[in-house]
Amino acid sequence: MAGPLVASNRGPVTFTGGVPRRGGGGLVTAVGPALTTEDGSVWLAAAGTTADRAVARHRPSLTAHLPEGSLRLELLPIDQAEYDAYYNGVANEVLWPLLHQLLDLSREPSFDDTFGRAWRDYREVNERFADACAAHPLTGGAFIQDYHLALVPALLRNRRPDAAIAHYTHCPFAEPAALEVLPAAVRTELLAGMLGADLLCFEVPRWQRRFLRCAAAAGYPVDFATGRVTVGDRVVSTGAYPLGVDAVDLRRQAATQPVRAECRRLRDVVGERTVIVRVDRMEPSKNILRGLAGYRLLLDRHPDLHGTVTHLVYAYGSRTGVAAYRRYADDVEQAAHDINRTYGTPDWCPVVLHTEDNYPAALAAMSIADVVVVNPVWDGQNMVAKEAPTVAEHPVVLVLSANAGAADDLADGAVVVNPFDVAELATALETAVSMPAGERQRRHRCVIEAAKARPPAEWFAAQRADLAVALHERAGATAFPLTTSGSLGS
Amino acid sequence: MAGPLVASNRGPVTFTGGVPRRGGGGLVTAVGPALTTEDGSVWLAAAGTTADRAVARHRPSLTAHLPEGSLRLELLPIDQAEYDAYYNGVANEVLWPLLHQLLDLSREPSFDDTFGRAWRDYREVNERFADACAAHPLTGGAFIQDYHLALVPALLRNRRPDAAIAHYTHCPFAEPAALEVLPAAVRTELLAGMLGADLLCFEVPRWQRRFLRCAAAAGYPVDFATGRVTVGDRVVSTGAYPLGVDAVDLRRQAATQPVRAECRRLRDVVGERTVIVRVDRMEPSKNILRGLAGYRLLLDRHPDLHGTVTHLVYAYGSRTGVAAYRRYADDVEQAAHDINRTYGTPDWCPVVLHTEDNYPAALAAMSIADVVVVNPVWDGQNMVAKEAPTVAEHPVVLVLSANAGAADDLADGAVVVNPFDVAELATALETAVSMPAGERQRRHRCVIEAAKARPPAEWFAAQRADLAVALHERAGATAFPLTTSGSLGS
Repeated sequence: MAGPLVASNRGPVTFTGGVPRRGGGGLVTAVGPALTTEDGSVWLAAAGTTADRAVARHRPSLTAHLPEGSLRLELLPIDQAEYDAYYNGVANEVLWPLLHQLLDLSREPSFDDTFGRAWRDYREVNERFADACAAHPLTGGAFIQDYHLALVPALLRNRRPDAAIAHYTHCPFAEPAALEVLPAAVRTELLAGMLGADLLCFEVPRWQRRFLRCAAAAGYPVDFATGRVTVGDRVVSTGAYPLGVDAVDLRRQAATQPVRAECRRLRDVVGERTVIVRVDRMEPSKNILRGLAGYRLLLDRHPDLHGTVTHLVYAYGSRTGVAAYRRYADDVEQAAHDINRTYGTPDWCPVVLHTEDNYPAALAAMSIADVVVVNPVWDGQNMVAKEAPTVAEHPVVLVLSANAGAADDLADGAVVVNPFDVAELATALETAVSMPAGERQRRHRCVIEAAKARPPAEWFAAQRADLAVALHERAGATAFPLTTSGSLGS
Repeated sequence: MAGPLVASNRGPVTFTGGVPRRGGGGLVTAVGPALTTEDGSVWLAAAGTTADRAVARHRPSLTAHLPEGSLRLELLPIDQAEYDAYYNGVANEVLWPLLHQLLDLSREPSFDDTFGRAWRDYREVNERFADACAAHPLTGGAFIQDYHLALVPALLRNRRPDAAIAHYTHCPFAEPAALEVLPAAVRTELLAGMLGADLLCFEVPRWQRRFLRCAAAAGYPVDFATGRVTVGDRVVSTGAYPLGVDAVDLRRQAATQPVRAECRRLRDVVGERTVIVRVDRMEPSKNILRGLAGYRLLLDRHPDLHGTVTHLVYAYGSRTGVAAYRRYADDVEQAAHDINRTYGTPDWCPVVLHTEDNYPAALAAMSIADVVVVNPVWDGQNMVAKEAPTVAEHPVVLVLSANAGAADDLADGAVVVNPFDVAELATALETAVSMPAGERQRRHRCVIEAAKARPPAEWFAAQRADLAVALHERAGATAFPLTTSGSLGS
């Protein structure tokens, strides 16, 4: 069977002085095993840093050796100014906050001529990806990743009308009213770009429905029952593909020596206290400030809990070059400090904040957790909500934002909160720390079962199968074999 | 015919040392003439300042003499702390930005126990209004105003099941996804509060439909074709009542001596230049910063326009006690200063910014305008978009935000822009300053005709008529006479 083509902004490895280092993304875990060096499969990624560009210039096509196996990697060198405009000017500063409803609309965005130029660079980088994709036979289908490459499906369709094209959005999608913030021409081009695909994949049905409403608002005929959009003489399928955890692999990682050592160290620190854990990028969408406010309110309301709980907060740096992110990180540190100053004693530190990126330490904290807090303002899926309960050694209570995509899968077992409602979060934490053992166990089991429902390999297989189905239904399509797993539906 | 009861947060007059002063709101103009001292009609308002409370304590019911006639006014004394929580803690800081989509959701709102107490105060003030309303016969119907008093309809319904109750929302309404930011109990109470009315009035059909979608999302049966919502055994009607201008009165004001003198003074300043005018409260929702950015971009793109245009900006202070508003005002002054420093010459000041509240001066600027800019981020209606073309002495081009309610009426004549799209605004200004006389005249006439379509008296008469119709359709209703104007539909 012909292997797939995967295209994403960031590749499975990045380079430092020519030395490859595996990236942290879950996409590698999910997609890596489906790619080999023998079946024509390939991963295309942007070379946007100086080091990556240096590699790309000498070895535009190379073999990357990963724990998941070896695969062929093609790096597209993009020059610095163009990459900045595409990646920061459009993707990070406009599309990301727009899709996460995090724009302070009284001031931003402001679509001036600078944005107009950035949008042309964004289109140009998408064209480069489309050219690179089109140079491959594509007999295993093209799987384009995320909002960085939203125009690639239509651009590739222009070059290769018969290609089998899927696109996956790894974040929420916007309501039509939110999408109307974009300049009309940009909004039109963005939707038309995505709708060049045969199959549009979203993390959960909520984001899929939002996309369908946007398509309908833009005038495309939409069948909400089947999730199909008519684009001229083509039909575009849509589906939701929530990513689950690979429980066996996660527990294997949690059993490694560095994680066990960190668990013992943490146990010494927290003693017999109830451990409330959160693990996030330091990121406004993750809602760490309101999380701390909720914990503080719990302590305000319950002097009886003082000294009996510890909140371990792992919030590792993200986009530290952006002023708003630095300000957010400063405010998080200040909030943690204020809680400790108000309530801490020589024997008890109410909040322990870690800001370094240390996955073994975070995994150790998840392992010893009694309560896990995942309260993003908005989040496409949120894997911590699935990973932490999976590795927890004791029955754990998951306090989960209704606005995380993961709530679609985990709502039955989790204590679900409105992420803006700090008072509700404090009540949920109170419920969690005082929950009777029986209910705690029942909820924990329920969350674990749901978390592993669609592990990474199955997640990608389902997309491949559904793309094949979409192709079979299309007259005059390039031959594209059904994978043996068949359609898993959506 | 029995006169109506009107209830609003702010009354038609406020007091300074016991001396009444007419408020600036358009509501007085619209409603005032329908109230007299003889027919049982009355206006209820909160006494929230020290001066108003002093009057309310001695004369809870008094006669207010207005240019529109004399009416009976009842002032409800609300103590300072309670008023602050109701007016600032809930109405201004949460409901207003929520309904205008101006929350920076990464940080605000944060619904903690302080908000919980403020919400109880908000409810308490609404109860006080409901009590005061219920003490009247209500044979002419109760007309409750705005989001400050959103719970009054249901609270009054509890006290007086047969009363005829209307509620008018003087700003946009939120999409269901935006309303979900509120704590669930607050959202439920807010919708149920409004749905205590027989008739819910909105400024334009867009906001009415948003409300209906919110009601449907909350589980109420909604008939979108007729705009009716079923609440238990009651049916609630909804309608859109866009407010038009009283062209005769406006032109009379524009012809007064102070306005004429200011016109002459302005003419001396601007000479033969093309005059671009905006008049707003200094308010983030009014989008003055992006307005100046668009004008600056016009000058960047068109050196040929330097020295030939003048931008008169009237932005009078609003909520100057709030830090974010002061910051916004500072940034507006800075932006105007930067444009003048970059492009100004000894003979030409590109931007003339006025921040004092001077209605005659603003009316003079509207009178001599060649182009009027109204580009709010979101706005329930926006009367400047209707007033400025009405008083303009020359054919004027209106550049209007698609997100102003007024765009529903004026889109045919105006040049409509996306308020976030500064590049589009610059292009629209270019179109406006270079528009041929014929098209300019045609568009101006078109805007004027639409602006005066439903003048203030007719606007209130339509609501009274539709409330009467709603009552007649309700079995067991209190007798409530149809007004002679009949229903004007919606």
